[in-house]
Amino acid sequence: MSANSFGSRFRITSFGESHGVALGAIVEGCPAGVTFDMSLITSELARRRPGQNGIVSGRNEEDAPEVLSGVFEGKTLGTPIAVIVRNKDARSEDYKEIAFSPRAGHADDLWRSKFGHSDHRGGGRSSGRETVARVIGGAIAQMVLREAAPSLRVFAFASQIGPVKLDDAEVLEVEKRLVGREIAVDQFSSRFPHVVKNAEIEEMLLKAKAEGRSYGGEVQVFIANSPMGLGQPVFHKLKSDLAAAFMSVGATAGVELGDGREVMEAEGSEFHRQTDQRQYGGIRGGISTGEPILLRVFFKPTATVLDVAKKGRHDPCIVIRAIPVLESMAWMVMADHLLWARQDRI
Amino acid sequence: MSANSFGSRFRITSFGESHGVALGAIVEGCPAGVTFDMSLITSELARRRPGQNGIVSGRNEEDAPEVLSGVFEGKTLGTPIAVIVRNKDARSEDYKEIAFSPRAGHADDLWRSKFGHSDHRGGGRSSGRETVARVIGGAIAQMVLREAAPSLRVFAFASQIGPVKLDDAEVLEVEKRLVGREIAVDQFSSRFPHVVKNAEIEEMLLKAKAEGRSYGGEVQVFIANSPMGLGQPVFHKLKSDLAAAFMSVGATAGVELGDGREVMEAEGSEFHRQTDQRQYGGIRGGISTGEPILLRVFFKPTATVLDVAKKGRHDPCIVIRAIPVLESMAWMVMADHLLWARQDRI
Amino acid sequence: MSANSFGSRFRITSFGESHGVALGAIVEGCPAGVTFDMSLITSELARRRPGQNGIVSGRNEEDAPEVLSGVFEGKTLGTPIAVIVRNKDARSEDYKEIAFSPRAGHADDLWRSKFGHSDHRGGGRSSGRETVARVIGGAIAQMVLREAAPSLRVFAFASQIGPVKLDDAEVLEVEKRLVGREIAVDQFSSRFPHVVKNAEIEEMLLKAKAEGRSYGGEVQVFIANSPMGLGQPVFHKLKSDLAAAFMSVGATAGVELGDGREVMEAEGSEFHRQTDQRQYGGIRGGISTGEPILLRVFFKPTATVLDVAKKGRHDPCIVIRAIPVLESMAWMVMADHLLWARQDRI
Amino acid sequence: MSANSFGSRFRITSFGESHGVALGAIVEGCPAGVTFDMSLITSELARRRPGQNGIVSGRNEEDAPEVLSGVFEGKTLGTPIAVIVRNKDARSEDYKEIAFSPRAGHADDLWRSKFGHSDHRGGGRSSGRETVARVIGGAIAQMVLREAAPSLRVFAFASQIGPVKLDDAEVLEVEKRLVGREIAVDQFSSRFPHVVKNAEIEEMLLKAKAEGRSYGGEVQVFIANSPMGLGQPVFHKLKSDLAAAFMSVGATAGVELGDGREVMEAEGSEFHRQTDQRQYGGIRGGISTGEPILLRVFFKPTATVLDVAKKGRHDPCIVIRAIPVLESMAWMVMADHLLWARQDRI
Repeated sequence: MSANSFGSRFRITSFGESHGVALGAIVEGCPAGVTFDMSLITSELARRRPGQNGIVSGRNEEDAPEVLSGVFEGKTLGTPIAVIVRNKDARSEDYKEIAFSPRAGHADDLWRSKFGHSDHRGGGRSSGRETVARVIGGAIAQMVLREAAPSLRVFAFASQIGPVKLDDAEVLEVEKRLVGREIAVDQFSSRFPHVVKNAEIEEMLLKAKAEGRSYGGEVQVFIANSPMGLGQPVFHKLKSDLAAAFMSVGATAGVELGDGREVMEAEGSEFHRQTDQRQYGGIRGGISTGEPILLRVFFKPTATVLDVAKKGRHDPCIVIRAIPVLESMAWMVMADHLLWARQDRI
Repeated sequence: MSANSFGSRFRITSFGESHGVALGAIVEGCPAGVTFDMSLITSELARRRPGQNGIVSGRNEEDAPEVLSGVFEGKTLGTPIAVIVRNKDARSEDYKEIAFSPRAGHADDLWRSKFGHSDHRGGGRSSGRETVARVIGGAIAQMVLREAAPSLRVFAFASQIGPVKLDDAEVLEVEKRLVGREIAVDQFSSRFPHVVKNAEIEEMLLKAKAEGRSYGGEVQVFIANSPMGLGQPVFHKLKSDLAAAFMSVGATAGVELGDGREVMEAEGSEFHRQTDQRQYGGIRGGISTGEPILLRVFFKPTATVLDVAKKGRHDPCIVIRAIPVLESMAWMVMADHLLWARQDRI
Repeated sequence: MSANSFGSRFRITSFGESHGVALGAIVEGCPAGVTFDMSLITSELARRRPGQNGIVSGRNEEDAPEVLSGVFEGKTLGTPIAVIVRNKDARSEDYKEIAFSPRAGHADDLWRSKFGHSDHRGGGRSSGRETVARVIGGAIAQMVLREAAPSLRVFAFASQIGPVKLDDAEVLEVEKRLVGREIAVDQFSSRFPHVVKNAEIEEMLLKAKAEGRSYGGEVQVFIANSPMGLGQPVFHKLKSDLAAAFMSVGATAGVELGDGREVMEAEGSEFHRQTDQRQYGGIRGGISTGEPILLRVFFKPTATVLDVAKKGRHDPCIVIRAIPVLESMAWMVMADHLLWARQDRI
Repeated sequence: MSANSFGSRFRITSFGESHGVALGAIVEGCPAGVTFDMSLITSELARRRPGQNGIVSGRNEEDAPEVLSGVFEGKTLGTPIAVIVRNKDARSEDYKEIAFSPRAGHADDLWRSKFGHSDHRGGGRSSGRETVARVIGGAIAQMVLREAAPSLRVFAFASQIGPVKLDDAEVLEVEKRLVGREIAVDQFSSRFPHVVKNAEIEEMLLKAKAEGRSYGGEVQVFIANSPMGLGQPVFHKLKSDLAAAFMSVGATAGVELGDGREVMEAEGSEFHRQTDQRQYGGIRGGISTGEPILLRVFFKPTATVLDVAKKGRHDPCIVIRAIPVLESMAWMVMADHLLWARQDRI
């Protein structure tokens, strides 16, 4: 188990510093013969990209992926797939002062104490920029699942940004409309799928960005049409791997499955008699039931909001750009467990 | 990465079915020369044991551990430590009917569909009985940390059982008194450290047990005096590994770090200016800050409450017995990262 | 990667000291539904057992395996299979003097220097007794292959013991007769499949045992009817995993594939034109070709021959008892790669 | 365990096809603070490079490494180090015919049968060109050991090429002179450290290259000044990991430790009484003794000698260019075990 790898059968290794030469991912375990869709990597990276609209960081990165290996004549080879993205707008001189004054809420001081030698430029490896690797991995996982579980779909959307929330009924409604393809999350600038509230959030975040303020929020992750039987006993329960995946993303403060903390108040004999099955969040005993898999992830307000942020390079709410990252992590976990299940029976 | 192993440097492999011959754990990565404290394993198992009082499962297991390897003349050898516990009260005939009618809230049906062949006796491997292995592993991790980080301490306690809760101030007070050794969690039959509310809970659970009802709850995990600098970048952040650890325990429905979902509502520039540092839960950028590490874990009401439970073999609230299991997982994660940090610098 | 585990998809973890309570193996990755053949474990352990005849160690171990988990109603569950063997004849008092005077050719001194604290009783973990775990794992691998590749067979036999050898033509002849089931290796007391030379070896070893002398030797490992296409690129080539497997057995001094060191003298254009394909040893580019897989393993003379051996507890030639261990390692490598190949294609 | 990774604590992941965009390595586990010596990577790659003299392949690759991550201000960061080398002279049109007629001795046919879809251009991933990644990893391992075990040195040299050999006394003499820095392996065009025989080999190989012929050979790997106590019990013995490392290199047909196959003929009580300790090859019980570590590796004659080789792109004896690759594998194994040993004791 290496510190920068994730997954058992479908496995990503992430590398690259925020202000280094390049970031990238090595994907291992992708079977041979998968149709490789370069445009999917590009479009998913664009969804994560800073500068995509006015309410996210203004760092200007083209994030053009280059595939170095593992693909031939439009199909995967079964060999490691290496994809890199070069850093362009790495104004590391902006960060010189950080060498001497660690930023609140960041880990600069901890890294220095841990490693002795560290990269003070924009957080180095603990920067959110590292998630480029995850989006690459997620896109490749998605290619695998397109062929191995074609109806499986992963959606994530914001259900809270700062004080603005969707209520439970609205969440249900959104899920239904997403599955029915009536709406798409990316129609909404803050990925908060509610026309009026999204406008409200947009205004709030523009103001916050100007003033060096920030907000946290909540993301719903919804996995439709998962095959039944995914997940491993004991330590690699599907819920455990998904929790690890999501909590490995920066600024996360919690994750809930299904009804989450509400389940605490339920009485058991009634709880387990519910017929919509939402109470289990699509996972029982660590194994997918075939019903929709439902998780929620909480995010702290972005840390970098003061001095440095005044230069316009940070996000007033990281939730917006974290959504494709959470989706990517979910795609990878699902691909991993789907391939793992090939070994279930003789 | 194997399905039944957890940890990188300090690594447990768990084995055994609920109604098989024995359960156990192999611990690898425990350095040589650690003083081996057999009584710690025994006492920690006793804390997890069914039948320890009237408000937990009446299954009668002595849970006597036997060390098969890895220890010599009172010290660890640096070789794998194997510890087993034999099943005694494995009334598997009680479970014969389950072979034909899967239990609500359990994974019997899923295991059958996944593996074709499965052990219907009491959940087999997905039974809570598997956590015997984790308590063994946790006790050994605790022995390592006694020498490598002697002041580190792990406490878990219930802050909610069904409708009965501790408020935030009470939680703080409990933490202070636990650290100061003024109280001990095990003084309270439900591990809910409040005299009056504990009595209330006890009554509630006795009634629930008799009526085949059950409750969920919330556990606070509090790690005091952690060294600074534990945690790996990116995928093995300390928070990610702790979340995976806790969510790998059955019946968990969520985990929160620090202020958890409350952080969503905070505004960033104020949030990060707080001086008590509780908002980070003792972890920034995935790395321990040296401040107390604070997590919360949510539990669903126990699933087995109806037919089978009438025979008195199940828990009206699993939280009570889950507490030593969560502590064990926390000990293992901390030992793992402490050993991992030996490789941080040349 | 843990120090005591071997294999990726089919994975064994070995534990136990030579003079501790018990030794054993945890096998993970065995799919559910495999018919479990307890008698195979017993019979394979009997082949490895000391005291099986006059020319091996006289240590008296019944080596009765006990299955603790992973099997139900005669079939594997897909959960970890734990099997242990208790030590009976652990005359550790014989080894008290070793605490002060390390044995020539053993690692007692190195272990002490490495771990500070070590088990001087009969080599502890570096004893050949550890291979009990491997024979258990090999037998379970064999059960998997019986169903997944029923015609695959693994044979090992001695082709040299001390100065007595089979020539190339004799080796070929033996292989043919083994595959044709005309002879069985275990017909020969020294597992050297030649009636006259076996008698000669037997006499030589009886004498050596009495005089505290010992011999090395060569083992041929022959895998018939392997499926084509097993082996992973680059680091887990089939030949690399087999070499690691064999060289992890004590007293080994080398391993050769196919024609081995003879290939050095061959000229390439002729070498690759040979039609019997033996020159590749059944593996090209790290991948099985479907032809017989042929390896040779060299063994040093047993180290423990002097003081301690006078008490009759050691082997005048370890090759005889190493043969079932090498076969076990081969079975495990083949099962591992066969399961691994399930992920080759989408 | 992934198919393209090697090592536990110091771990390389290799990627890239022979005729793809680039090849490279990700190194994980390199501690922070190691002085990074770019020139060492460049010079080691130059030693492996085709076209370095007239008796190796004429493929013209500059092999200019680019470091993408993990290094800052001349020191390692403790984060993954990614280094790539772009392919330049990838005349894949030369290989078009191979799409239809697999090359003798190569694995083209096996890859096609295994993966369904494969890269026929020059062997894709099973090409010797993949070893670029290993040389990168080996150079970084060497940087680690320069600081962690400064006197440790790894030498490899040819002791046989086709019919030309060094005898045992000559091998000893060469080792002594290498350690004493009286000679350097690279003084000899064929890395066969004997002036007269090297000239003979050079002539032989020039002729062979012109005629489409090839030879195998033997390499001595000599590790001086290894710390005592490296190696893990049981499956990751130092000899097992070194054997796996060397046998993962293409065209290898065997590996021997110390006296290798000669040990078979030795009688034990004499064998173990030898005082020069060469009989153990520097490893007892799987653990380094502190004496020189000695291994030998056998190579088959190069496979690609006929049609394609006429175009001058292949090696008449791969041993010459394999030498820096074997050294790289040895550096990595030693760095891995040195870091691993940090966990030996509490």
